[in-house]
Amino acid sequence: MDECIFCKIVKGEIPSKKVYEDEDVLAFLDINPMHEGQTLVIPKKHYDYVFDMPDGELCKLFKASKKVARAIDRALNPVRTCVVVEGFLVPHVHVRLHPTKEPRLEFKPLPKPSDAELEEVRQKIVSALEEIE
Amino acid sequence: MDECIFCKIVKGEIPSKKVYEDEDVLAFLDINPMHEGQTLVIPKKHYDYVFDMPDGELCKLFKASKKVARAIDRALNPVRTCVVVEGFLVPHVHVRLHPTKEPRLEFKPLPKPSDAELEEVRQKIVSALEEIE
Repeated sequence: MDECIFCKIVKGEIPSKKVYEDEDVLAFLDINPMHEGQTLVIPKKHYDYVFDMPDGELCKLFKASKKVARAIDRALNPVRTCVVVEGFLVPHVHVRLHPTKEPRLEFKPLPKPSDAELEEVRQKIVSALEEIE
Repeated sequence: MDECIFCKIVKGEIPSKKVYEDEDVLAFLDINPMHEGQTLVIPKKHYDYVFDMPDGELCKLFKASKKVARAIDRALNPVRTCVVVEGFLVPHVHVRLHPTKEPRLEFKPLPKPSDAELEEVRQKIVSALEEIE
């Protein structure tokens, strides 16, 4: 998809705060988070709708999401990391990981983090991923 | 888990509006929906937290969720069926499928549906599952 912003991120045409990548999946920080450390996990191949994905690719996406979520949990110590898949704003499948510090899932935007703040969070998650692997 | 309400539903000790069942997974209508046809997909084995599930069981859960979501899409024709996994109210992993009729995901409770209304929706989803399979 030439015009898809997430496809451009996959191709490196738009920068992102990458936390994880494998052959099929990319994960990067949401730059407009509702929770600190909010991360988007996407298939590299373009799909609009998560339930159009073949089973094998769906499994890879959620296995990678688990890996990233466990690193987020280690790095940021939320109550838990919640999952939302809706895809209305950017029509490229994304598993949105919400590390919630309260025992409820609320959607209130945080003040937009600076690049330095995002980078600090990114490095914590990447370090936790390296410790786990 | 003796006291877990979803474990009791799995064991048949509490009734549910079942739409799908296989060896590992059970899906039933949410009796307090925010969207018509809102369905909970749960692993039969008790886990508190989705990212504590082994990869294989996680895959089975999301493959079953896809099967059910595609039947919901066929039966109820939402814009799409969104996914939320948070698990704060009942601490037994549940994939909450939200068939949204608007191009956004909002969490406003519907008026509580009657048993007859739930049963009508259940039968539509079950019929769609039979048509797909």
